[in-house]
Formats: sequence, structure tokens, C-alpha cells
Amino acid sequence: MESKWIKAMYRVLYLSPVAPRPRHEELFADMVRAHKWPETEARVACLPAHVGQFNHVEFRSYEALVTPDLIRGVRAASREGFDACVIGCFYDTAVLEAREISGEMIVTAPCEASCDIAATLSNRFGIIVGRQKWVNQMQKTVHRLGHGDRLTGFYAVGLGVTDFQTDHGLTRRCLMETADRAVNRDHAEALILGCTMEIGFHKDLERMFGVPVIDPSSAAFMRAQYFARLKQRSGLKPSRKWSCEAPPEDEMQTLDVFEQPPFFGNEINIPAQGNRQ
Amino acid sequence: MESKWIKAMYRVLYLSPVAPRPRHEELFADMVRAHKWPETEARVACLPAHVGQFNHVEFRSYEALVTPDLIRGVRAASREGFDACVIGCFYDTAVLEAREISGEMIVTAPCEASCDIAATLSNRFGIIVGRQKWVNQMQKTVHRLGHGDRLTGFYAVGLGVTDFQTDHGLTRRCLMETADRAVNRDHAEALILGCTMEIGFHKDLERMFGVPVIDPSSAAFMRAQYFARLKQRSGLKPSRKWSCEAPPEDEMQTLDVFEQPPFFGNEINIPAQGNRQ
Amino acid sequence: MESKWIKAMYRVLYLSPVAPRPRHEELFADMVRAHKWPETEARVACLPAHVGQFNHVEFRSYEALVTPDLIRGVRAASREGFDACVIGCFYDTAVLEAREISGEMIVTAPCEASCDIAATLSNRFGIIVGRQKWVNQMQKTVHRLGHGDRLTGFYAVGLGVTDFQTDHGLTRRCLMETADRAVNRDHAEALILGCTMEIGFHKDLERMFGVPVIDPSSAAFMRAQYFARLKQRSGLKPSRKWSCEAPPEDEMQTLDVFEQPPFFGNEINIPAQGNRQ
Amino acid sequence: MESKWIKAMYRVLYLSPVAPRPRHEELFADMVRAHKWPETEARVACLPAHVGQFNHVEFRSYEALVTPDLIRGVRAASREGFDACVIGCFYDTAVLEAREISGEMIVTAPCEASCDIAATLSNRFGIIVGRQKWVNQMQKTVHRLGHGDRLTGFYAVGLGVTDFQTDHGLTRRCLMETADRAVNRDHAEALILGCTMEIGFHKDLERMFGVPVIDPSSAAFMRAQYFARLKQRSGLKPSRKWSCEAPPEDEMQTLDVFEQPPFFGNEINIPAQGNRQ
Amino acid sequence: MESKWIKAMYRVLYLSPVAPRPRHEELFADMVRAHKWPETEARVACLPAHVGQFNHVEFRSYEALVTPDLIRGVRAASREGFDACVIGCFYDTAVLEAREISGEMIVTAPCEASCDIAATLSNRFGIIVGRQKWVNQMQKTVHRLGHGDRLTGFYAVGLGVTDFQTDHGLTRRCLMETADRAVNRDHAEALILGCTMEIGFHKDLERMFGVPVIDPSSAAFMRAQYFARLKQRSGLKPSRKWSCEAPPEDEMQTLDVFEQPPFFGNEINIPAQGNRQ
Amino acid sequence: MESKWIKAMYRVLYLSPVAPRPRHEELFADMVRAHKWPETEARVACLPAHVGQFNHVEFRSYEALVTPDLIRGVRAASREGFDACVIGCFYDTAVLEAREISGEMIVTAPCEASCDIAATLSNRFGIIVGRQKWVNQMQKTVHRLGHGDRLTGFYAVGLGVTDFQTDHGLTRRCLMETADRAVNRDHAEALILGCTMEIGFHKDLERMFGVPVIDPSSAAFMRAQYFARLKQRSGLKPSRKWSCEAPPEDEMQTLDVFEQPPFFGNEINIPAQGNRQ
Repeated sequence: MESKWIKAMYRVLYLSPVAPRPRHEELFADMVRAHKWPETEARVACLPAHVGQFNHVEFRSYEALVTPDLIRGVRAASREGFDACVIGCFYDTAVLEAREISGEMIVTAPCEASCDIAATLSNRFGIIVGRQKWVNQMQKTVHRLGHGDRLTGFYAVGLGVTDFQTDHGLTRRCLMETADRAVNRDHAEALILGCTMEIGFHKDLERMFGVPVIDPSSAAFMRAQYFARLKQRSGLKPSRKWSCEAPPEDEMQTLDVFEQPPFFGNEINIPAQGNRQ
Repeated sequence: MESKWIKAMYRVLYLSPVAPRPRHEELFADMVRAHKWPETEARVACLPAHVGQFNHVEFRSYEALVTPDLIRGVRAASREGFDACVIGCFYDTAVLEAREISGEMIVTAPCEASCDIAATLSNRFGIIVGRQKWVNQMQKTVHRLGHGDRLTGFYAVGLGVTDFQTDHGLTRRCLMETADRAVNRDHAEALILGCTMEIGFHKDLERMFGVPVIDPSSAAFMRAQYFARLKQRSGLKPSRKWSCEAPPEDEMQTLDVFEQPPFFGNEINIPAQGNRQ
Repeated sequence: MESKWIKAMYRVLYLSPVAPRPRHEELFADMVRAHKWPETEARVACLPAHVGQFNHVEFRSYEALVTPDLIRGVRAASREGFDACVIGCFYDTAVLEAREISGEMIVTAPCEASCDIAATLSNRFGIIVGRQKWVNQMQKTVHRLGHGDRLTGFYAVGLGVTDFQTDHGLTRRCLMETADRAVNRDHAEALILGCTMEIGFHKDLERMFGVPVIDPSSAAFMRAQYFARLKQRSGLKPSRKWSCEAPPEDEMQTLDVFEQPPFFGNEINIPAQGNRQ
Repeated sequence: MESKWIKAMYRVLYLSPVAPRPRHEELFADMVRAHKWPETEARVACLPAHVGQFNHVEFRSYEALVTPDLIRGVRAASREGFDACVIGCFYDTAVLEAREISGEMIVTAPCEASCDIAATLSNRFGIIVGRQKWVNQMQKTVHRLGHGDRLTGFYAVGLGVTDFQTDHGLTRRCLMETADRAVNRDHAEALILGCTMEIGFHKDLERMFGVPVIDPSSAAFMRAQYFARLKQRSGLKPSRKWSCEAPPEDEMQTLDVFEQPPFFGNEINIPAQGNRQ
Repeated sequence: MESKWIKAMYRVLYLSPVAPRPRHEELFADMVRAHKWPETEARVACLPAHVGQFNHVEFRSYEALVTPDLIRGVRAASREGFDACVIGCFYDTAVLEAREISGEMIVTAPCEASCDIAATLSNRFGIIVGRQKWVNQMQKTVHRLGHGDRLTGFYAVGLGVTDFQTDHGLTRRCLMETADRAVNRDHAEALILGCTMEIGFHKDLERMFGVPVIDPSSAAFMRAQYFARLKQRSGLKPSRKWSCEAPPEDEMQTLDVFEQPPFFGNEINIPAQGNRQ
Repeated sequence: MESKWIKAMYRVLYLSPVAPRPRHEELFADMVRAHKWPETEARVACLPAHVGQFNHVEFRSYEALVTPDLIRGVRAASREGFDACVIGCFYDTAVLEAREISGEMIVTAPCEASCDIAATLSNRFGIIVGRQKWVNQMQKTVHRLGHGDRLTGFYAVGLGVTDFQTDHGLTRRCLMETADRAVNRDHAEALILGCTMEIGFHKDLERMFGVPVIDPSSAAFMRAQYFARLKQRSGLKPSRKWSCEAPPEDEMQTLDVFEQPPFFGNEINIPAQGNRQ
């Protein structure tokens, strides 16, 4: 029985910036189980119930409203000893804010992870999103990350976050039509699915169009494991110099907001020995 | 008595993203009185006391923590009939988020206002800030606004937000030394004071260096009045199309967070007839 | 009679870079009357008759030929005590040259004014122009101003400057068709009319497409009033440092070109009490 | 006598945008003689005496005032059959305007010519100019041309246009000190002299610093000959499509400004057989 | 007999980065004869037979495989006393590498030459290439050169390098259709043929579309002559400072790869007196 | 004995683009052993002896001369079944060329790997290199990768590739002095050592300056393992569409250059069970 030999080498958190919804967390726990490396101990969590109203953050204002709990969750995870964490939304919601107070934990997110992979596997890529509403903000993120010149474009299929997993046949049709434009009209050489809820469709698209298709949540989880290992093996940790300076620890401790539990909603913990191969 | 002739033509809110502190609000109420146009009815306010811990938002995480109350305040102001509003921090904290739910109210902020003025009065300008910590984030804002090529640089004097009004002699000395580098070494043709708490020093610098020096809070308040008038006279209002789409009004009304008062901390209301000239 | 209470607080010039043509000046005088603030004393003028051949400046060479008289007019207005001035062409003709010799007067122009408004009311906007000829030059202006990333595109309707006011039905149809492409194909969230002679059509487009539509001449006149007030209230004036240095006053006085009247063609003066509300 | 074999294959104009001053034209006529190719027939000219006040165009407003005569001169040269023309100022004064009405004649200028050469002979170069005043405008030209990333910087020696040829010892010392900073501090790999009046010093600098040093007026004249030959051999002429459209010829003919001689001040004509080697 | 009067003033090499194929070299020798200036002594050559497998370098890996022989050829030409050289492929294959070891010889290439001409004759241009495969790499070159903002786009006709000269009727049809899109849909004002093997078609396109159409191999050869003359007349040579530093001559001499002949495949030498006009 | 449980899950090649030199390969084999993940089977290799002259590739021309063997080695590794490969030089030598023919193997390199890490751990970073010669080329790579705005600068210590491991005391002193400028003058928040031969010094710098310091060869090897795992777990492979198209396999097989062994110089193979933890 080999699994007993494996002990956790590092811990990775996948944090969904939405309220608890059981099937939601299970969806991403399955993704984590499928993409976990043997030594990874993982947790999939969402935000505590008290901001429980949000089952999507398609709006900037909704993101703003869940961000304090993201900040609290990231800080709690850091203090609990997590090595890396994913904020599970393709807006890369609050990733810069979270990095400021993540201590020695490294924070990453789906858009960042997906673009890095797409840029390594191709020269130009397209991003398939739900609604036109999202494009402007995501485009700024892609440009901030340095991938602006690699974009063939954003492609909106006209579905909201909560629609993707409702009618799989419809979702597949929408994605296929859009991917065709990206690849055959605009010469995309790889595709990114620009919403974590587009989970489950990338392999079909890959087969159909013969280009790499990147699922953002698993990409982000893989990247978080990479950075956790990098930290464990090379000792690399977030800079705290100049613009990376964190608030003074004692000042934070006087602010209730940082200190009051609960910090997570539904938690699913996946041990290192969970999926030994 | 001429003041009776003046009736409010539009209403402008100056919202400080910090907790109530009486002398703080008075400082900005004085600024508003000095820069108000006759027909402007104004309010100076801060955030409600329940997020009362913050007397500065020098950190991204602090900004994130006050942002939900900013969002609530901006939405409340819009529903109360304000025409324009300033978010009073040189980070232009949450300006893009606030615009999403501002309805027919136009939102502006100090960095945006100051850069537009500096770009009209000069070809290149420098920005004098408190601490090096701030620079990276503010630089991104200036680039996002489209003024990146006009920057001679950011200049940190080594003071925190709450230091500027503590020892005026020290503040003046720090600003003078730094302005000298900006103007005479880097060829800045105008200067912006990159913190609303640097209020009160711009005229001295202007006299000393012979270049326009822009105070950010009054610049933002002037700009808000400009947009309020533009709205009143030309009927221009924020776009609600594509990326400017707001969350559905009914969805917002089901979210407690948008609906629970109080929306403001200390409020100082300044009537239209307040400073008729 | 309330109007007697109002005295001019600042003076604004709207200068058309074309030869005198009575109905032309009246058109813009009406615009000024409709968008004037109570305290504004305004003048609408065009160039003196001796360069009277130009009724449009669609060509760079035509702009170059009217520019000396623009320079002379701007300098004359500055010496007459005007606080702000608009150069009334969407090319923002000679605005950088005029700023050099405008003394304490602030110079602005339609493209600059319109883009600033569009960028505040939306994230991305389109500009509807007359002929494809204009696009390249105007695009450079929009990029110089820092709004390049906000452009969905320029849209040429195929009409010349002097055509817009000839057959209003045709103009409306052309603008409607083009606006549809900008908004519905390219996802423009606001529109700018890229010629001062497109005056009169923006409200129809606004109603039809549900996005802000910016009329450039009134935008520029509003902006000039804003800067005039800013100057009067905050004492801000153009920088004269480094690249903003003006020619030596005594050298200019030896150059006939700066000193010989007339400086304006048809002048329409609109007093401060003209439109008290 | 070999020179009889040479007949003019193409004609090139070097047009100084200043008033006639005999030694000035001779200076550039000597430059032309030294850099002429055998088959080139050349003319060195300045503007007609009636705008005769300008012996430099250090200011944007001065450039604007001489531009109508530049336009007239360029159009006249085109109609006289010149194949290429240089506008002899490192601001590349009015080059875009002149190109519009140059017919089949190709227009070039010193900054454009110098940067192309510097970019071919090195990866990064510095530009040594007279006064800080000039830098902002020239920098925009260099960026417009596409060479922004190759600039180590602009270096102002503190001399005006008319100073360079006054005290050669002083000029040499200023240039040497400045070149040292460009090459040894900022790692410039080539230098451009950013004023046509810096003529005569580039060889000394080249010897001292061991990098290519480009004299802008001869660079521009060489480039004009290149384009004249290209036109003669390959039939390439300026585009007149879209933004390159010229004003209608008949409209121009009704505008006195294009038609009234004189078009040039002092003319020095240098025949093809002038310097056969 | 005038030709006896002409002696070579400078020597220019046109080097095709492919294996010897007699009709290939003759094609470019004819081009050289048609575009040579009287004083130019020219050589058309290809790579030595031992890398003889390549008759095109459509792939980055193929370019990499021929580059060592390009390097050797360029170094040999420099030591033989050539003044300028063209690397005859629109990828501008290895031009930066070749410049490093070209000694006093100036290296240029078709894309660089064509874009400079197109930018001088128009404001925006399109590039017609063979296959979509090429576009990404060539686009990077155009951006590196500084012409990114002038591109209306790349247009792939769907033909490979070796197809262009196979069925001239087909080639002409493909080019015509594509040019139409570039000029009439995308508003290109000039066209560049983005493959040296598109030779022979530019005049037809020019006649059909009324815009300048640039043949890249003759453009590069003209530019090489320009730089050769510049070197001979102005003494300008490549910088060897900082990033332009060449490997130490003695180190190169110990590396067999630089020293072993043959350096060229088929050579066609064209004397200065060859085409005296 | 737990190690027997580990079987190789993927294979990674670290390929030095220099000739065999025993201590050189051992240096990187030690690095690989220290940074290997348990399931990784690794090979450290250099180029075959027949291009054995190069012990550094500081020059573009030297890179060009070793590139054909890099291409051959990468293709051989791909056919041998390697999943990912590092080209071990901070120039990221030939990484775009190698990707074209790497089949299903993913290629990465030190500069790409280091910048991605630095951008995740900080907002701005500096790169410490050997000689000024390198800077221009490396800067272009950093910009191509999309990290240009994050650079505080390149810092040359004045040592060549082969000097870094000669006098460790000297190297340490040079690096310390330079790092101080990067961090304390230019506000770098992380540092990258810009040469694989700077190996061994990063921990000292990290301790001294309190910022993350990234060793490029181990960064690249970590990244290669990440991509190998990504490929094995998510099935992601390089795109072969549009610009990513490889040469036709049958054409490559007719070209001797791709087929003739040897493909590697000194090979050190490190099994998966080598360093089980």
C-alpha cells in the first residue's frame, strides 16, 4: 500500500469567492482530486455564509462586496500554514490585495495561470467568456499581466456564470461556435475558458479544434502547487519590500475585521495521501 | 441679500473613505466652501462608524476593507439625488467599482482630476507622495488614465498619510526638497500633491518653484462640479451599456448589503447659498 | 430681475478656425447660449476675413494655413483678459502651438474635451467622423491624449464638413447607421461626434442607442468654462517652465505678425447676464 | 572632362524654414556640395523675405508662423519638378503637412533621417540638443517615428540655435561634456546632433567617443537623394489614398495663398555636374 | 562610351539565405541590374552548397539552420571589403546576429527597407504574405522596427514561398483579391509584398489599386546602396559600443566556423560599369 | 526503502548550449538533484563536441552558431520521449525556434521562468547581469515576455560568463554592490540573477537584502517540471496551429541536419528515484 508513504509536503488552498453551495464546492474538490500532485494537501473552500448572497461575482461591485472576506480568508490560510492559494475566479478577484497580507503564502489565480500556460504553448490565444459585460475588466487584467499582444480577442457566448452548468448541451454548442471564430477567423492557436464555471468542456473543444484548451480552475490549482513546491524547495516567498509592504502586524491585530472567525464557508480537505499514483 | 437668488442646481458629494474624525471632515468642508461654485449644494461625509478603525488607507487591503461601505455610500448618494461625487483618496479608491452602481450620478476622484488638469497646464508633471509603498499602485492608475508618458516620476517624501498635518514645518521642508528634484533635475513642468492630506501646501510650492501645483482634493471637487453641471446642462449621464452594465436593480435590492443604513459617517451639508460671491 | 446680480467672473472665447460666415457663427453662439454658466462672459469668433477662403480645414495643409491667425487670435484674447479659450475644430487644430503663447489663458479643444467626458462616462467609446481622410490624424490625437485603449474605432460616414448641415435627413441617416455599428458590433459604450459641424444630432442618437453621445463643440465650451473657473478659484494657470516656455515677450513684439489687428472675424459677444437661470 | 557626361537624374531641394541670411544658406550649400551624389541637381533655399523675421524656430508658435510659407515652398518645388525635398529643421517642422500637398515629390526631414541611420548602425542612441525647451516636442517626434525604445535620452547643452556657430570652442566643449554622459553613463551606442546648426562638430565627437555621430542636415539630404533615386528607379511616389489625400487641385488654385510668388528666399542652385568624382 | 568613366565607389552584396538554384540567383541578379546605381559594384550570392537542402526558410528552425552560413557569409563579405549587404528574406533573417560581426559593413534586409519606404510614402500600410504561418514572426519584426502603429494588417494569400513563381496567373489573382481587402476594407494607403519571391507583381498591383506597392528585394537593395553611399560619403559605420560589441577578433579566428571557405554558393558579380545611364 | 515506490512520471532535459566541460555539467546536475521533484527523471546535457569551441554564448553570433545543434538536440529529446526541456542560458537562446520542432515536448528557459516567478512574488524586479553587452538583447526578451513595466533595470557587474565561478569573493562583492543599487536606489522588490553561471550566490543576496533572489537555472528547471506535470496530468501540449506549425515531418527527415547523431555532449542522467524525500 503505497499511499502510506506520502506525507504532505505543502498545503494549497482553492478559495471560491462565493457563498457556500454544496455542489459548487464538490465540483472544484473533484477538479482538485484530479489535478493534485501526490504530496499536496489541499483545501477547497468558499466564503463564510454571512456574505452568503453571492453565487457569482459578475459585477465589480459584487467583487468589492466579497473582497473583505477574501482578504480575511487569505490571511487566515497564511496563518494556518498554507503555502499557496488560488482565488477561484477568472477576474483574478482581489489578487493584488490578497498578496499584500498573505505573509509567506503565495497567491495566484486563474487568469494569471491560464495566460502563462497559453503563452508557453502558443504564440496567440483567445479567451471565451460568458457575457460581454466581463470583457473590459478581463482585458485590463490580461494587459496588466503582460499578455496583451498575444490576445486574438475575447469571445462572449452570451451566458452568465450560473448558466454554464445548467444546460450542458447549450453550453457546448455556444462554446463550439465561438471557438470556431477564435481559431479559424482570428487565428487563435490556443484557447482559454474565461470562467471557472466553464469547467468540464475543455477536452471536447481540444478534440474538435486541435489546439490546447485551458481550463482556468485546474490551471490555477496546478500553478499554486508549482509555487508551493518552489517555496518548499527553493525557499522563495513573497517580497515584503517597497510596494509589497504589508500593513504592520500589530495594526492589523487591532482591526476586528482581520481577526473574527469564521474565515471560510464549506471546507473540503483533501489529504496528501488522497490520490497517490 | 443676493444669496436668496441662488438655488441649488446640482448636488455634489465629497466622500472620504475613512472613519469619522471631526477635524478631518472639517478640513475638507473648508476646502469645499473655498472651491464651491454658487449653485452647488455639497455634502462632505466619511464612512459610517462601524468600519471606523481606518484613519488612512495606505494599504491595498485597507482599501478593500472600506470599499463595501464606499459602494453603499455611493449608491445611497445616487438614490438621494446627488449628481456627482468624489471619492476622496489619491488612490482613486474603488472608482471603477463605484461607477458601476452609481446610477445617474457621475463619480470622479483626485488622481483622475489632478492628472487631467496637469496635462492641460503642462506637458510633463511630477507627483509628490508620502511613502514609496504607494508608488507602484498609483503609477498603474496614472498609466490606466492615459498619462503615463507625461510623468517625470513619483517622489516619496517619507511621510505617512497621518504625518502630513502633524508637523507643518517638517512637511513643508520635505515637500520643498522633493519638489526641487522634480522640477530642476527631472524637468517637471507642473506638480501634483499625491495625497489629499497634503492639503494646504500647494500655494507655497507654487510660489517657490513657479509651476502650477495641484491640490488633489480641491481638483477632484472642482471636477465633480464640472460633471454635475455637464449633466444638468447637457443631460450627459454614465453609460450603462456593455461593461458599464449595473447589477439588476432587483437583485441588488435582495442583497442586504446595499440596503442597510447608515450610509455615511459625519455629514457636513453645505447649501447652495453658502458662499455666494 | 435676477440677472442684474450676475457679473462676469471669467471670460471664455470660442474661436472657429475658419473664415467669417454669418450663419456659422450664429450656430455656435446659440450653442454657447445654451451651455453657458451664469457667470460666464463669452465671445464666439472666427478668423479675420483676410484668410477668409477657408470654410473647412479638412486638410492638414489648410490647418497650417489658418494657424498663424489662430496664434494671433489666441494671443490677442489672452492680452484682452480672456481666461480660457476653445479652438473650435475636432482636429484640436494647433492647440499645442496656441498654448505656448496663451499667457495666463487656458486653451482647450473639442477632441480633448470629448474624450475626457467619454472616458468618465464609459470604458470604451467610438468616434463618428465625416470622411476616412480625417481618421489617421484624429487617431494620433486620441492616442496623444492617452485615450487610445478606450477607442472602439473611428467611423466615417462619408460626408464632408460642409455636408453635415446641408441635408439633415441624410446626415441623420448616416449617423444612425454608423452608430449602430459602433455600439452593436464593436461594443462602444459611448459615442463622440467627431466634427463640430455634426452639431444638433447627438440627442437623437442618444435616444436611439441608449448611450451617452457627446457633441464636441459644447463639450469643449463646457470644459473651457471649467478651466476658467478653476483658474479664477484655484489660481491655476498654464506652466511656463521647460517645454512650456513662451517666446520672449520682447522678441514677439518685434515680430509684426503678432501685433497687427484685426485678430478676429465676426465677433458675437454674450454677456454674463445673458442667460441667468 | 568627365563632368559633361553627367546629366541630372533627379532634383532635390534643401529648404531652411527661416528667413534669408546669406552665410546661413552658404553653410548648407557647402554641406550639399560635400554630400551630393553625382547625378543630383540640388537647390538650397530658405523662406521668402516677407516672413523674414525668423532666424530660428525654437518655438512651436514660430514654427506655426513660418509653416504657410513652407507649404507654399514645398508645393512650388513639386510643381517645378523636384523629386525630393528636405525641410531643414530637426523639429521636422510641418513634414506631415508638407507631405499632403507635395504631389509626386517625396518630403523628408532631419530627425526622421537621423533616427533611421542611428537605428541601423546601433541599437540605442542619444540626441544632443540645444535647450531643454526643445526636448518634449522632439521626443514626441522620435516616438511617432517608432524609435522611442532606442533612445537613451535627450541631452540639452544649454545653447540656443543661434549660439552653436558663435563660439566654436564653447560649442565643442558643451557637446563633448554632454556626449560623455550619453555614451558612458547612459550607454548610448550612437549619437545624433539634434539641431541642423550643430553642423561641423560631428567628426570631432566621433573621434573622441568612438561611436557613430550623425549630422542631421547631411543625413536628411542623403535620405532625400535616396528617395529621389528610389522614385526615379522604382517609380515609387507618395500615396494619395485615404489619409494621404491632397486637397482638390482646383480648390487649391482658388486659394491665393498657394499661388502667389515668391516661394523661396535666397536660392543656391547646384548642378548635377557640380561635384563629379 | 560613357561606361569607362564609372569606377566602383562601393560594393554591395545581395545574399539569399537559401541553397544554390541557378534560376533563383538570376532572378535577383536581374533585379539588381535594374535597380543598381551606376557606381555600385554588386554581387548576388546564395549560401554554399553544403547547406544546400533549403530552397525556402518558411520555418524558424530552417532559418536557424541556415544562419551559421549567413554569419560566415556576412563576415567574409566584410573582410572582402563590401560596404553594405542585404540578407534577402522578408523575415530579415538573422539581421541582428549578422550586424554583430559585420565589421565596417552595414547590413540591411527587406522588411526593414520596405517599412521605412512605406512609412515615408503613406501613413498606414498592409503587408501581403504567403501563409498565415509567417504572420506572427513578421509582425514582431514590424513592431521591433517601430512600425506597429502603421500596420493595417498582414494578409495571407495561402501560397508558400516556392509557389509564387510557379503559376503567375494564380499568384496575380491571389494578390489582387488580398490587396483589395487591404486597401478598400482596411484602408491601407500603401502595400508591401512580404516575400522576396513575390517579385514581379508589384507594378500590376500599383496600377490596379493606385497606391504605392513595394517590392521587398529591390527595396532592400536600394537601401543597401543608400547606406553604402552614406558610409563612403559621410564615413558612417556600424557602432561597436556596448550591445554592438563584436566578439574579439582573435577569439573568432580560433573558431573554425568563421574561417573555413566556401562562404558563398553561386556568385553573380555585377560590375559598376554594368548599367551606366 | 521508499524509493522503489517511485517511478518516473515524466522526463525533463536541462540542455546547456555550450560544449562539453565536465565540471560545468556537474554543476548543473547538482542543481537538478537539489531541485528535482520525486517523480522527475532528468537529464543534464550539453551540445555535442563537434561544436565544442564555445564555453559561453555572450554574443548573438555565437548563439547563432550553436543554435543548429540546439535544434537537433531538442528534436532528439522530443523523439526520445522527454516531456519538457530547459535551454540553459539566460538569453533564452533559440527558445522560439526550438518550440517549433519540439513536437509534444514543452520548451522553457531561464529568463522566462525567472520573470514569471519574480512577477508573482513582487511588483518590480531588477536583473543583475555580467556585462553591459548583454543588456539590450535581454531587455528585448523581458519586454517580449510582457514584463517590461516590472523592470527596475538591468545591472551589469562587469564580469563575463566564465568569470563568475573563478573568484567567488570577487563575484560576491560585485553582486552585493549592484544589488544594493537595484534595491535601495531603484526600489527593486525582487532580484533575478541574469546568468546561469551566477549559480550559488542567490541565498547570500537574499539574506543581505531581504528580498526574493531568483537563481535562473533552478527556476527554469522547476518550471520545466511544472510543465511536464501539467502535460502529464492535464494533457496540455504545444499548439501546432498557425504560427506554431512545425515543418512537415517528411521534409525534416530528408534534411540530414535533423537526423545525424550525436545529439548531445556529456549526458548525466538522474533517475526518478534519485532523491526521494
